[in-house]
Amino acid sequence: MNNHLFDKEIYISRRKRLAENVGGGLIVLLGNEDSPMNYADNCFPFRQNSTFLYYFGLDVPMLAAIIDVDNSNEIIFGNDVSMDDIIWTGPLPSIAALAANVGVTATQPYHKIEAAVQTAKSKQQPVHILPPYRAENKIKLSQWLDISLNDVSQSASLKLIKAVIAQRECKEACEVEQLNNAVSISADMHLAAMQLAKPGMMEYEVAAKVEAIALANNGRLSYPIILTVNGQTLHNHYHGNKLKEGDMVLMDAGAENAMHYAGDLTRTFPAGKTFSTRQKEMYNVVLASLNHATQLLKPGIEFREIHRQASIKLLEGLKQLGLVKGNAEEAVHAGVHTLFFQCGVGHAMGLDVHDMEDLGEQYVGYTDALKKSREFGWKSLRLAKQLKPGFVLTVEPGLYFIPELIDRWKAENKLNDFINYDVVEQYRNFTGIRIEDNYLITDEGSQKLGKHLIKEADEIEAIRQNA
Amino acid sequence: MNNHLFDKEIYISRRKRLAENVGGGLIVLLGNEDSPMNYADNCFPFRQNSTFLYYFGLDVPMLAAIIDVDNSNEIIFGNDVSMDDIIWTGPLPSIAALAANVGVTATQPYHKIEAAVQTAKSKQQPVHILPPYRAENKIKLSQWLDISLNDVSQSASLKLIKAVIAQRECKEACEVEQLNNAVSISADMHLAAMQLAKPGMMEYEVAAKVEAIALANNGRLSYPIILTVNGQTLHNHYHGNKLKEGDMVLMDAGAENAMHYAGDLTRTFPAGKTFSTRQKEMYNVVLASLNHATQLLKPGIEFREIHRQASIKLLEGLKQLGLVKGNAEEAVHAGVHTLFFQCGVGHAMGLDVHDMEDLGEQYVGYTDALKKSREFGWKSLRLAKQLKPGFVLTVEPGLYFIPELIDRWKAENKLNDFINYDVVEQYRNFTGIRIEDNYLITDEGSQKLGKHLIKEADEIEAIRQNA
Repeated sequence: MNNHLFDKEIYISRRKRLAENVGGGLIVLLGNEDSPMNYADNCFPFRQNSTFLYYFGLDVPMLAAIIDVDNSNEIIFGNDVSMDDIIWTGPLPSIAALAANVGVTATQPYHKIEAAVQTAKSKQQPVHILPPYRAENKIKLSQWLDISLNDVSQSASLKLIKAVIAQRECKEACEVEQLNNAVSISADMHLAAMQLAKPGMMEYEVAAKVEAIALANNGRLSYPIILTVNGQTLHNHYHGNKLKEGDMVLMDAGAENAMHYAGDLTRTFPAGKTFSTRQKEMYNVVLASLNHATQLLKPGIEFREIHRQASIKLLEGLKQLGLVKGNAEEAVHAGVHTLFFQCGVGHAMGLDVHDMEDLGEQYVGYTDALKKSREFGWKSLRLAKQLKPGFVLTVEPGLYFIPELIDRWKAENKLNDFINYDVVEQYRNFTGIRIEDNYLITDEGSQKLGKHLIKEADEIEAIRQNA
Repeated sequence: MNNHLFDKEIYISRRKRLAENVGGGLIVLLGNEDSPMNYADNCFPFRQNSTFLYYFGLDVPMLAAIIDVDNSNEIIFGNDVSMDDIIWTGPLPSIAALAANVGVTATQPYHKIEAAVQTAKSKQQPVHILPPYRAENKIKLSQWLDISLNDVSQSASLKLIKAVIAQRECKEACEVEQLNNAVSISADMHLAAMQLAKPGMMEYEVAAKVEAIALANNGRLSYPIILTVNGQTLHNHYHGNKLKEGDMVLMDAGAENAMHYAGDLTRTFPAGKTFSTRQKEMYNVVLASLNHATQLLKPGIEFREIHRQASIKLLEGLKQLGLVKGNAEEAVHAGVHTLFFQCGVGHAMGLDVHDMEDLGEQYVGYTDALKKSREFGWKSLRLAKQLKPGFVLTVEPGLYFIPELIDRWKAENKLNDFINYDVVEQYRNFTGIRIEDNYLITDEGSQKLGKHLIKEADEIEAIRQNA
């Protein structure tokens, strides 16, 4: 087990505020179980539920907790190890000892939680649960609450969801320190990739070295590495290509540090020693968009506006290269950018790389008044609402040339007042470029997280000379 | 996706034999889904169900298949990607194209399998399923077969379980080649650890380099690495200790290669440059047991006897060191070895590191006539039955000094006709030693799998001189 914890007062005060914000009822928070790979006892590395980590800190499988708001009572449920277990797992602290480390005095065996939930139900006490994303927890909640499996997610408590988001979205100082650490490890991973990748290597050989850096820092990846010569595929986890002269390598990778905070950086670099002229021109269009977007970050601005501004900057650059024409702002309004930039410009980050995505994007990234667009491109924007101090987020503009999408738009003559399809056609196999950094919103503006990681085209070429 | 496949005739003939052996009814084989880490879309690396891989080869999430034995019909169920998917995942071959690669001509959308199962049920056709080890698949089978979640595992078909085991337990030539590859990668991992570990390093720093080797071979770990200065804890996945002079490092680690075959090796080496005299004496006891056990491997012998012989050899060695007394064979009969050797001497290995453990140890490692013992130590022996040509297995004797267990036995004066507790007491913090190799049972005897990996104490010390 991982013993890393914040000071116990932090967990106590987080739970106190949660109870106040929810106001009444029984809050049920489930930890995760181990996830089987190919049979029950051969499991993936254990990943605790992030909300459970946030309020209870304990990084051990098969725990659950209740906060009885009406009766000011907190209980952690879990089972102590037996002598038989000690042979296989070594001596472990008791659940009571673990709980004491995070300021909880009452513990009970795991199976007792079912009775605790049912007692609350029988007394008409509201039971607040979060939407489960793992089937094991869905089954448990279905049984404890006596509702069908299909109804569990809809039974989640909106009050609890909103209270958790209100706390987790504004990072505390101790969390910012962890996020800086995670992003710095992520920067080391990217620098290593730029230093060691060479034409002739397989993508998975580079990815192996990158992942090892996260592991050597007592952490792991915050998400499966994207390391590809086909950067136009947004979530490309295939690593079976051989790098060759002339390719660009898009690497989107981040560490999850020992305290489970995420980093999420992207760099795009030439597989050989230099970008081609065309690659460098396009790279600088993306970089200008990133620089423009990050300069705008401050409390009060909507992230939807950051996305719009980044998109305008991308189209201004593409206009200079002849791929599009007309007024860039009007073009973005018409949706022209979505031919090249099909996703959002960023998302919240914290204990999860897409922070709190399990609680619902509509609550994390939007508000009751600000609803998500259903339009292509815009519908993939995970964060749109007004920024507040303490928000941590990614900024990651990109340009992606997807042949199938170009073909479809061209066949439809879509937006051809704005798009020079004959020029776009010359880029159909250009692949993709993304550049991504992570920012904290401060009282005055913003602050880039983690150690410096080069991103100017010249700096990248300089490091590639020695690769 | 991983495109590695055997020749399609191999899958066709495996399925043909399965259908013959089961004899009738509808065989339902489920592939795996992606397993969420911390929210639905952030998943662990995909691991396909091994039995699905064995019969259908396709290494893609969200597939299922039926083999209708009565009507000589095979269907793979899965969904083709949409244009929206292409943006995120790139263009992928159709399910029909994938199925053709493994000799299946009929495909249908995933949701159609429910109707296929229910039609069979309504016609009183027996439906053969395997016991699910993932909650997602348990839920599906519960719904399709209209049985409660708690009854799904008991509804598994013993006929199907036994037919699958009968095929998978005897490895084909193409599988032996893959297993040799996986064990050779595993040997590289161990050699690297012995070369790079140094006093002052954290266990996780060494583990990171070891895992990177599995990844750099387009594979992964076949199970979470055990790399610990506390080798007495049998499944110790804690990597937070610092190596120091005088420690022994026990590393139990194996690769899963690109075709998903497992290796599983263990070495124990000094954290410094040399073993202490006491460590080397004990190391040689374990090595003698390994050598004795592996020399006995051949078709016809029960693996239970291999376990007994390995245990006798361990006690003979411990007798020379003064920890035990009396006749070693009698001592093993009395259970003396289980104070030092609490687990089994090996297990079947193949697509799973504990091969087919999901199908039930009683069927994989035992027979209807040969039941599993419930005694301490013996109950942890996963494989006991007669060996046949084509079996692949591990041999892994060890000696583990578990202070809590020594205290308990000593307090009970347990078996003190055989045990010199005063001497054992001097070893209470000795930790543990395990040495493990992987073998194929051949027509004449056995064959060690994978490339050579040093295991003599002198060879290990020689390599540690340069670490």
